[in-house]
Amino acid sequence: MKVKQVIVARKDLNMSPGKLAAQVSHASLGALLDEIRESRTDTIFKLKEKSAAYKWLAEDFTKIVLQVNSEEELLALYKIAKSKGMSCALIVDDGRTEVEPGTATCLGIGPDFNCDIDEITGHLKLYK
Amino acid sequence: MKVKQVIVARKDLNMSPGKLAAQVSHASLGALLDEIRESRTDTIFKLKEKSAAYKWLAEDFTKIVLQVNSEEELLALYKIAKSKGMSCALIVDDGRTEVEPGTATCLGIGPDFNCDIDEITGHLKLYK
Repeated sequence: MKVKQVIVARKDLNMSPGKLAAQVSHASLGALLDEIRESRTDTIFKLKEKSAAYKWLAEDFTKIVLQVNSEEELLALYKIAKSKGMSCALIVDDGRTEVEPGTATCLGIGPDFNCDIDEITGHLKLYK
Repeated sequence: MKVKQVIVARKDLNMSPGKLAAQVSHASLGALLDEIRESRTDTIFKLKEKSAAYKWLAEDFTKIVLQVNSEEELLALYKIAKSKGMSCALIVDDGRTEVEPGTATCLGIGPDFNCDIDEITGHLKLYK
């Protein structure tokens, strides 16, 4: 089964490409750390061999960046991902640069199996 | 001492914001994994307490995205970072989407102490 990580970002904030890239990177790392904590291995290289995260790190750590157009949509996806027990990380910016303090900018989900992630984000467009 | 991670990305490739964000995330994770391997702890949460990477993960994992305008500049920075023994990751894209196969898109350096990273990238502009 294929594995990936999805990062959903808010297009409506009109972040500069550099700002967006930094926020997406935070979400990516945050969701991975969440996965590592959940797996209780305390280590990035000792994840269970059959786990999605292990497979993801051992292969080409595919990352897909998708878009939503409001904070409401982002928070709704976060709630769904959490309720399904997926590893995830919601990034709330401290607002020192381009957005207001406390703005939720993006959400990392996984690494996990494609089919499980697609149940949550399969309907979203690529962030171009 | 403050710590950060810098990701240098090629502005000349005119990648879409979503593509850029995915590439920068690869570089960020790649450089962190390089740091973890180098520290020989084999684990993300057992880095030495005084190390830059430990401090970075325990605090707000600051990421700064900077720009260059050619592959030559990117490769020159990679060479310098390597020669100084910094943890780093050069991302070479497989070219399935926006760029030619084998294109170097970005370079992650650190996490490391600000002063050490600034010696290499202090002259570069923010990627906006």
